[in-house]
Amino acid sequence: MAGIADVARAAGVSKSTASRALTGSGYVSATTRQRVRDAAAALGYVPTTSAVSLVTGRTQTVGVVMPSLDRWFFAQVLEGIQDALLERRYDLALYGAPPESSARREMFEHFLARKRFDGLIAVGIEPSAHELERLVEFGKPVVAVGGYGIGTNAVSIDDHAAARIATDHLVGLGHREIVFLGGDPDGRRTSFGDGRRLDGYLSAMGEAGLEASVRHVQSEVTMPGGYGAAVELLGDRRTRPTAIVGVCDEVAVGAIIAARRLGIRVPERLSVVGIDDHAYAEMFSLTTLQQRPHQQGRAAVQLLMWQLDDPDAPTHRLYESSPLVVRNSTAPVDDDASAIIGVGPLGTG
Amino acid sequence: MAGIADVARAAGVSKSTASRALTGSGYVSATTRQRVRDAAAALGYVPTTSAVSLVTGRTQTVGVVMPSLDRWFFAQVLEGIQDALLERRYDLALYGAPPESSARREMFEHFLARKRFDGLIAVGIEPSAHELERLVEFGKPVVAVGGYGIGTNAVSIDDHAAARIATDHLVGLGHREIVFLGGDPDGRRTSFGDGRRLDGYLSAMGEAGLEASVRHVQSEVTMPGGYGAAVELLGDRRTRPTAIVGVCDEVAVGAIIAARRLGIRVPERLSVVGIDDHAYAEMFSLTTLQQRPHQQGRAAVQLLMWQLDDPDAPTHRLYESSPLVVRNSTAPVDDDASAIIGVGPLGTG
Repeated sequence: MAGIADVARAAGVSKSTASRALTGSGYVSATTRQRVRDAAAALGYVPTTSAVSLVTGRTQTVGVVMPSLDRWFFAQVLEGIQDALLERRYDLALYGAPPESSARREMFEHFLARKRFDGLIAVGIEPSAHELERLVEFGKPVVAVGGYGIGTNAVSIDDHAAARIATDHLVGLGHREIVFLGGDPDGRRTSFGDGRRLDGYLSAMGEAGLEASVRHVQSEVTMPGGYGAAVELLGDRRTRPTAIVGVCDEVAVGAIIAARRLGIRVPERLSVVGIDDHAYAEMFSLTTLQQRPHQQGRAAVQLLMWQLDDPDAPTHRLYESSPLVVRNSTAPVDDDASAIIGVGPLGTG
Repeated sequence: MAGIADVARAAGVSKSTASRALTGSGYVSATTRQRVRDAAAALGYVPTTSAVSLVTGRTQTVGVVMPSLDRWFFAQVLEGIQDALLERRYDLALYGAPPESSARREMFEHFLARKRFDGLIAVGIEPSAHELERLVEFGKPVVAVGGYGIGTNAVSIDDHAAARIATDHLVGLGHREIVFLGGDPDGRRTSFGDGRRLDGYLSAMGEAGLEASVRHVQSEVTMPGGYGAAVELLGDRRTRPTAIVGVCDEVAVGAIIAARRLGIRVPERLSVVGIDDHAYAEMFSLTTLQQRPHQQGRAAVQLLMWQLDDPDAPTHRLYESSPLVVRNSTAPVDDDASAIIGVGPLGTG
């Protein structure tokens, strides 16, 4: 079986260059990398774990911890991380760790301590003080995706600004009764970014002089969660808002489905804006703030590799821009609708 | 730092029993396992990778390969696998490998050959002949989830039967113009199970003497995919069916949303049945065949551990039952609607 020395000889480079080219660690020019990979492929060379570890002192594995797998944002980030790691021939060790679960305790108490990966990407995790201690003890590079700031490298959109812009968009269309839908107020059951979005809504309402109209309706951060909460919210005509900011597109789409069920026309009688530009957003003509979590996953790997190559590299906070995409779920406020709020029964909404 | 000998002493068991209890490999009674774990926790014992590997010859890692992460079924299976592995203190190495992608080639050419995991769980993967060779060379236990049969352990629902029952349900309600929506005919871009579902539909139509009405409309196997294909399918009144079998709930829900958009009442003018009992099924009152992929993920780990403990264990094919859940998206055929198919324009559908 071919060894690294054979590959290096065939490619006309040193063993350490061949190793760097194959492991993706350290600088190698694109042409050299390709030459080494071609040589490795031609010779059928497969690096063994132990050999790679002996050369680099690394496990060639990156750990990824996230509170949920079954939500668009997390699945997209995970695919982006996966793609970027495969290109570098890294393994991905996955840990699903919902808040306050035993899986989460296991992750922080045991899996981190085993140190079976070179670095960790934490997606949408807001660590407790105790968990932070464990991360410090872990002593390897950590990149956060989705918002919390513990002095590590981090990638996210500016969640606060995104929700502020979403709210401003509705204010600009004349809406005053604007509800923020989704998530829990204490943030324990939601991701850190969701809490920041609520803050952004509150800021925008304050700046517009609408403090008195501020209203946060809690829901699970899923499409059925948004649907259930919106059925209740919109069912009472006396307190029905003219506009909704969804904590994310899944919740916003749930609200649109609820409105259709209740016969409330969107956007004529109800404007809805989301945050994400989810795969379903176009199908529901949803106005939203666009983010590309797949790219965030790739960027997180980039930052992690940077730190692995140079432990003294400065810490970066990387914000992906999140432009407003106006579709057909928002419109100027219907004065008839808003005028009769609190007055009495409406005809078909 | 405490070693395995200290843990064994504190728990009053042999070192090998302590090791089995902590690694989850081999038989240990529940009480002994708990006693050893309590001792390990009290002493702050953390098994190192190399130590565990030396004792057991194992990596304590299970590889999981799936074509997509951003689809309900796959996310649910993954969560089930994750939960079951965490309980056994196993790591999960994840490989996203879409059909005909470079990631997929990398997975089969390089990651398998590295043998960095004790076994592999393949979810919704239909391997090519070449990939099958690689799996045989891999030489470690493989469990398939989602349907293909290569002589390995396997977990799935009976996809063929599920689609047959879904179709029979519609036939029993008097429908004759029943379209199967979703997936590609050659199966290359869809999972193996999706192909089996199409076959189940064809069987049921044949048994009902409806060969002449058989119609498969392709779509991407997603909610927007089902939506887009259904808008086109339902938009032409001359060929509009009275019922649709969705290849899965996501596609079926897409069809319901399309029908609402076109003003076609469900179930009065169009019956829709899905397969999955997706998290969104209840929100859309979708009649469907229920499966619980989370449980399938857990079962896959169970089968894998069984084979790891006893390499001579017989191979199992485990079918999860998939009961019909009747909600409000199916109803007896509307004779008015079916009678005028092919005749001319309708009033509001």
